[in-house]
Amino acid sequence: MTILGDWGTTRLRLFRLEGGAVVDRLVGPGIGQITSSPAATFAATIAPWQAAARGGGVLLCGMAGSRNGVVEAPYASCPADPAAWAGATQSVEIDGIRVTIAPGLSGANFAGRADVMRGEETQIFGAVALDPALAQGRHLLVLPGTHSKWVELIDGRVARFHTFMTGEMFALLRDHSTLGRAGADVAGRDEGFVDGLARAGTGLLASLFEARAAQLIEGRSHGWAMGLMSGLLIGGEFAEALALAGDAPDKITLIGDPALSDIYAQAAAAHGLATVRLDGDACVIAGLRRLAAHLTSTEAGSGEA
Amino acid sequence: MTILGDWGTTRLRLFRLEGGAVVDRLVGPGIGQITSSPAATFAATIAPWQAAARGGGVLLCGMAGSRNGVVEAPYASCPADPAAWAGATQSVEIDGIRVTIAPGLSGANFAGRADVMRGEETQIFGAVALDPALAQGRHLLVLPGTHSKWVELIDGRVARFHTFMTGEMFALLRDHSTLGRAGADVAGRDEGFVDGLARAGTGLLASLFEARAAQLIEGRSHGWAMGLMSGLLIGGEFAEALALAGDAPDKITLIGDPALSDIYAQAAAAHGLATVRLDGDACVIAGLRRLAAHLTSTEAGSGEA
Repeated sequence: MTILGDWGTTRLRLFRLEGGAVVDRLVGPGIGQITSSPAATFAATIAPWQAAARGGGVLLCGMAGSRNGVVEAPYASCPADPAAWAGATQSVEIDGIRVTIAPGLSGANFAGRADVMRGEETQIFGAVALDPALAQGRHLLVLPGTHSKWVELIDGRVARFHTFMTGEMFALLRDHSTLGRAGADVAGRDEGFVDGLARAGTGLLASLFEARAAQLIEGRSHGWAMGLMSGLLIGGEFAEALALAGDAPDKITLIGDPALSDIYAQAAAAHGLATVRLDGDACVIAGLRRLAAHLTSTEAGSGEA
Repeated sequence: MTILGDWGTTRLRLFRLEGGAVVDRLVGPGIGQITSSPAATFAATIAPWQAAARGGGVLLCGMAGSRNGVVEAPYASCPADPAAWAGATQSVEIDGIRVTIAPGLSGANFAGRADVMRGEETQIFGAVALDPALAQGRHLLVLPGTHSKWVELIDGRVARFHTFMTGEMFALLRDHSTLGRAGADVAGRDEGFVDGLARAGTGLLASLFEARAAQLIEGRSHGWAMGLMSGLLIGGEFAEALALAGDAPDKITLIGDPALSDIYAQAAAAHGLATVRLDGDACVIAGLRRLAAHLTSTEAGSGEA
């Protein structure tokens, strides 16, 4: 397969590869935004590459495999390695194109409760391909985002993971709460973020209202208050995650976009953790390539080397 | 004054008293909902009682004294007793009616950070009037709501208080998040609430996503998930508040509407706390009457007995 894609909630991204490198891209609506069926949306988006897609098929990860996606791909169970993951793919034909859908992962989180992911597993297995040091021993990976994932990787397998509602909570507070407000007054934001990291220990419900009270009483800026909220949330995520993870390593691997990774690295430093950073897009593509190689080798009758 | 009122964010409620009892009520839009000026909205709402209002004046508490209200009444500082509170009222004339506005309170919260309230102080001082046991010694009062307040009362004075974003957070999650959904499927809600109370210890960001994962993996109902979120939030509020309050008493006084007080009493019981319950409306009216008596006696040249 030379066409790979990541179909998330907010967008569909298709990559065309030649010799292992991305040579072209297409973008379409996310699973959460489509107005026609997933199949019709997919066919319309891939139309410019139709001939190549019909010839070689397409591999998709992310929400494409959810109940609202192209076809439901049940979660592979943790602990999961790339072979188990590849073994749970689902295929369907759309407009003469064979579309293979990667499953997500399910398992018990750090607190022993049910948890799920769709899409991040591709980045995780891609990260192991990009950074061979991750293939051996125990590592803690953090994928910041709407639903941040903390992942315990043991010898290249996803042993367990835990979802934090951090990014979604920040968007809710910014866009819909009495603490948020239209307008991008960013003055004081960096200072607020540092203050938020420092104050995250008292609990989220107990600390968020300070974003309002400090504006009323201490004349703090709206930008400072937004930074404070961000610091309280991300600092809270680190405090909760490290308490749950138990025996935490002295470094974490951050997988995500550079701006978000910057602020997570700041939070990690505040907790005395070193960081290794991998680009989220590079990990998606590496993970899809790894999955495609698995599927090809399986069809050829042998497992991944 | 025989006309008293509570002008909050969501509604204006006016009470007409005779012999200490409420004999009539009027309702108008909240400060957060008015489309004309606060003064014009007030004049239109009170029109049916205009003659009485012009004769005796009106006393208002709540958001009427905020920056977006009738006239800004700066916060009285904690520790605050009714005399200090009454001393910080502001008066203004609207349509020939003398309107007196109660201030809110400000102070350092349980974590030593700035905090504010507007309206709850009226219920608190009203509660002391209704339950004389509160006038002596140290008591912990809890006023559940959009912004829940935990109040340390010492000898009838508000020593300090702490705001928790619990009610607003629940509304954000229910109305705007990926965890909420339209429709009132309440099956399993009570069970979810109890599960949420029990699981609140791991932190809010770490536990909320289970509301989604348990529906996908364990077949839990949407009602159970909503109950879980409520239990995680209220249980989280109790865990954070009791850790911050330090030397917590073995009972708390709950001030609020009966339905919300029911579920807070359940959370209190889960933490081994007994509860004394006072009706929120009765406390508002008792607090306004107490403030009116203070103002009358001050005008006559003497303080409250």
